[in-house]
Amino acid sequence: MATSHSHPSVDPCHRRSLSPIATPDRLLLGPGPSNADPTVLRALSRTPIGHLDPLYVELMAEVQELLRYAWQTDNRLTLPMSGTGSSAMEATLANTIEPGDRVLVAVKGYFGNRLVDMAGRYRADVRVVEKPWGEAFAFEDIEAALIEHKPAILAMVHAETSTGICQPMDGIGDLCRKHNCLLLLDTVTSLGGVPVFLDDWKVDLAYSCSQKGLSCPPGLGPFTMGPRAEEKLAARKDKVPNWYLDVSLLNQYWGSDRVYHHTAPVNMNFGMREALRLLAEEGLEQAWARHRTNAEALWAGLESQGLVMHAPEHLRLPTLTTVRIPEGVDGKAFTQHLLNEHGIEVGGGLGTLAGKIWRIGLMGYNSKPDNVNRLLNLFETELPRFRLGAVAAA
Amino acid sequence: MATSHSHPSVDPCHRRSLSPIATPDRLLLGPGPSNADPTVLRALSRTPIGHLDPLYVELMAEVQELLRYAWQTDNRLTLPMSGTGSSAMEATLANTIEPGDRVLVAVKGYFGNRLVDMAGRYRADVRVVEKPWGEAFAFEDIEAALIEHKPAILAMVHAETSTGICQPMDGIGDLCRKHNCLLLLDTVTSLGGVPVFLDDWKVDLAYSCSQKGLSCPPGLGPFTMGPRAEEKLAARKDKVPNWYLDVSLLNQYWGSDRVYHHTAPVNMNFGMREALRLLAEEGLEQAWARHRTNAEALWAGLESQGLVMHAPEHLRLPTLTTVRIPEGVDGKAFTQHLLNEHGIEVGGGLGTLAGKIWRIGLMGYNSKPDNVNRLLNLFETELPRFRLGAVAAA
Repeated sequence: MATSHSHPSVDPCHRRSLSPIATPDRLLLGPGPSNADPTVLRALSRTPIGHLDPLYVELMAEVQELLRYAWQTDNRLTLPMSGTGSSAMEATLANTIEPGDRVLVAVKGYFGNRLVDMAGRYRADVRVVEKPWGEAFAFEDIEAALIEHKPAILAMVHAETSTGICQPMDGIGDLCRKHNCLLLLDTVTSLGGVPVFLDDWKVDLAYSCSQKGLSCPPGLGPFTMGPRAEEKLAARKDKVPNWYLDVSLLNQYWGSDRVYHHTAPVNMNFGMREALRLLAEEGLEQAWARHRTNAEALWAGLESQGLVMHAPEHLRLPTLTTVRIPEGVDGKAFTQHLLNEHGIEVGGGLGTLAGKIWRIGLMGYNSKPDNVNRLLNLFETELPRFRLGAVAAA
Repeated sequence: MATSHSHPSVDPCHRRSLSPIATPDRLLLGPGPSNADPTVLRALSRTPIGHLDPLYVELMAEVQELLRYAWQTDNRLTLPMSGTGSSAMEATLANTIEPGDRVLVAVKGYFGNRLVDMAGRYRADVRVVEKPWGEAFAFEDIEAALIEHKPAILAMVHAETSTGICQPMDGIGDLCRKHNCLLLLDTVTSLGGVPVFLDDWKVDLAYSCSQKGLSCPPGLGPFTMGPRAEEKLAARKDKVPNWYLDVSLLNQYWGSDRVYHHTAPVNMNFGMREALRLLAEEGLEQAWARHRTNAEALWAGLESQGLVMHAPEHLRLPTLTTVRIPEGVDGKAFTQHLLNEHGIEVGGGLGTLAGKIWRIGLMGYNSKPDNVNRLLNLFETELPRFRLGAVAAA
């Protein structure tokens, strides 16, 4: 029973000899990831420390506290999931849905549909209320749907990354309390860039990502859960059907007990701490105002070139602008040209908007006048080459 | 219905003014995370690129191919999960268990118990065969358990991080084929440091982590699935009850279609690509031999100081050494002293071994003679101060 002194010989067929990594410095003006702040990238590359090291425990508490500031919440259970924003999205559902629970999803874009898919996997009785991709729900739409479906959870997207629409939240939290349902909110494209007041809005569950308004690379998923959602979790009959995202286990690690759950992604949390520190240093009002000012300059510039915004102005997200691809323009060829010749990433449409819009992100570190001007200049000089009948682009 | 021009004022109660991050350079000789190679840390701090950028698509293919080399497998579905090793662990179960499937877990330490917990959450009919924490299973133990329980999946741990035991794999894969069950193997503490031959061993499902033998920070979970496991996935009646870890969706992204699933943690994958590149450059045999040589020097040095290894030599893991805390020694005070006064992390015991052993990792970048010598010297000079009756340590 010798373990390892005799073994087959190593097969070299998948052994590849590669050069060290040499990725270019792109300017990421798509729907995400966005560029990270250089100081965040430096934090990311520090020597790791242990995930039970007292210094790491202290760092975790700072990350939690600064997330509360960013979200404007007092929720005790506020922490970054050790996965991307999508994992935090799933965590909100996995922890609170019990089989047969009715979950109403307000769908007005791609990410609403994803909530439907995910909730079904946790055996919810999923109901849907829909709006076209490019509109928002009115208070009355939500009220009627709550009365009709009587859900245990209403899930909706604050900032729809697929459409560029910002959902007005006035009164929705009160409606949910009145109809005895939890309010679950996607703030992936709003946190850090658009006013978010979780507690004031009476939101019970929310999630976000690291790589947009927070200016950190992708890899962590901010998650928060209020007292009403905690009660639902505590009343579960069975274990959460997802070990990795089980908040009752994570709480023992992130809480005062520090019970080992999984080995935390320490370097990503170094980056997250730095990203949140910079946001707190700037201040939320200042960050929100900066996003709005730069977005308004982008909108004005694009409109002055005859382009049409997909989202009506009063619902338009400052973090993510959706622009209609004009008739006769090869939208994909244009974005490939921007990427390959100018090192700038701009996104295309998802789902029903594929081929119909571009998506331009001005998020976190990237929301600055230089980026707006650089992109507007390229639209002015390069876009005409991609119009039908134009001489083929190089 | 104005979105954001009027809103409550920002509550500054969670706004904290922090200094930039200033973590110390620790030497991490515990059970993980281990120190990352400095070139991996540099790769991690590169400017992100988009997760659908052609350059990223190329990088992903390289990561997949180099993981196949490290694991010695031809499995098509070989990829890093966008979470820590624990997420990859859960992915092996989530994708293949259907409710009521019988899963036999061979438990000989903490991580075997975690497999039991996870499998239950996917509604498996979980059976357990056990060994004391510090032993391995004999071929006959496994054969008898397969005959008794007739499982659809046998799950076991190759390298038990809680005990330092390396499970001999001879003949187990053939047994599983004979008894028509899938073989699922935890290689968290073996990949890159201990001989692993997944295809030769007829392993159908395996997972690992980034922060041990691969010398990358924690945050990614290498995952692989062979053709027999793929068949079981394809034959599922329902969707995988975990959206984030659903390999049928991930395969559309990591495969040739590149369908958007989630925003990949691009910077972590920069680091992973560099870590795997360095392993391929060194060569598996060389890396394994290095781990064995350094571990043997550690064992000899500790034994010459009168310390007793917890694992019998023929089952001992070169990557993780378990040392019995001598009678009358305050084991925790000693490791706290090493951390606080010498910047070196050594781990304690988990579960039934808590307070009874230390766990010393020599993994990946950290497996080198200098680290062995530095630690042996500290055991020699500092440990006597922590023996019962010794003058209280400073």
